Amino acid sequence: MTIDADQLLAALRWRYATKRFDPTKKIPAPIWDALEESLVLTPSSFGLQPWKFLVVMDPNVRANLAPESWNQPQVTEASHYVVLTTRTDLTATDIDAWMNRMMEVQGSSEQAVAPLKGMIEGFVQAMAPEARHAWNIRQTYIALGQLMASAALLGIDACPMEGISMAGYDHVLGLEASGYATTVACALGYRAADDKYAGIAKGRFDRSRVVTRL
Amino acid sequence: MTIDADQLLAALRWRYATKRFDPTKKIPAPIWDALEESLVLTPSSFGLQPWKFLVVMDPNVRANLAPESWNQPQVTEASHYVVLTTRTDLTATDIDAWMNRMMEVQGSSEQAVAPLKGMIEGFVQAMAPEARHAWNIRQTYIALGQLMASAALLGIDACPMEGISMAGYDHVLGLEASGYATTVACALGYRAADDKYAGIAKGRFDRSRVVTRL
Repeated sequence: MTIDADQLLAALRWRYATKRFDPTKKIPAPIWDALEESLVLTPSSFGLQPWKFLVVMDPNVRANLAPESWNQPQVTEASHYVVLTTRTDLTATDIDAWMNRMMEVQGSSEQAVAPLKGMIEGFVQAMAPEARHAWNIRQTYIALGQLMASAALLGIDACPMEGISMAGYDHVLGLEASGYATTVACALGYRAADDKYAGIAKGRFDRSRVVTRL
Repeated sequence: MTIDADQLLAALRWRYATKRFDPTKKIPAPIWDALEESLVLTPSSFGLQPWKFLVVMDPNVRANLAPESWNQPQVTEASHYVVLTTRTDLTATDIDAWMNRMMEVQGSSEQAVAPLKGMIEGFVQAMAPEARHAWNIRQTYIALGQLMASAALLGIDACPMEGISMAGYDHVLGLEASGYATTVACALGYRAADDKYAGIAKGRFDRSRVVTRL
């Protein structure tokens, strides 16, 4: 079931932030299904999953997101375009939703989940609302990391999109009163044959600069 | 080179937040090397890599981190323990370091990287220092996501550690004046045969709740 180290590293080295996608190449449905599932399976703090992932298929919506993204071509050219949104707060309703889910899948009782629930409530209530949003956003970045690694392993190109107007996205996507806000996006598909960025050497620092064994 | 969708999902479903590791089982050096490399290869905004990853091998340091981690057993029982730290600011020195690296690996000139440098400087200077730290932290969470996904694919168990005292870690690790601060940790190794959490059903929400196609 596991893969070997060389295979993992080959995939992670193969990937790059794809600037130009081939708009004629679409990710096959079973592959896309797996990528959506990799989002669903993302680990999160306490398991709270404070996110919603919007897969923008409608070309008109994509066209409206482009100007909110410095008109970067990935928004309209990529096969698939995901907007990762994050819960702007974390309330008793959110915690209850997850506790109910736990009870459902594990067949456990309200009493059994009560200690965990109390711990989460204490942790969450100690934070200001902005801190809760910031904490939730960090979880969403785990999803981005898992999505990009998963895509690379499946041979799918991706480009994380941070240079976007989050407020502009929220407006185009009608998120303003939803309790969720745009955090980051990710374009996925197949690199264009002439994307010059594909050939540029990676600028990663030497391992000695970023990894220290103590 | 690529893997198939079933293999990816099997790995992501196999993983769970491992509470008890088998302290007698150590990750073989080539596998650990690949996991360190997966950290090095993590994508980051503009490629800035605002992080340092501390791999804590010394049992005494691990013992000192345990009380800063609610004495969770993963800290001392896991084969490997990584503390992911993040640059607390982002200055001209950081940007220069990356520009120099780009020129080095790509053989490009100062003039060639000047437009990118100007764009990054403008973006970074528009933020307050706390916002820069928060932005950097989000990048570190991409690394956490890539690390956990990579570990799962290699058959290595992992537990993300958010419930830690970041200030306590900074103190134990001597980070206070380093310009880097603890963000999150990750224990890696092999699940203990009797870790009861291994058998608990995942509480992920239904896909219909977290993924919407527009």
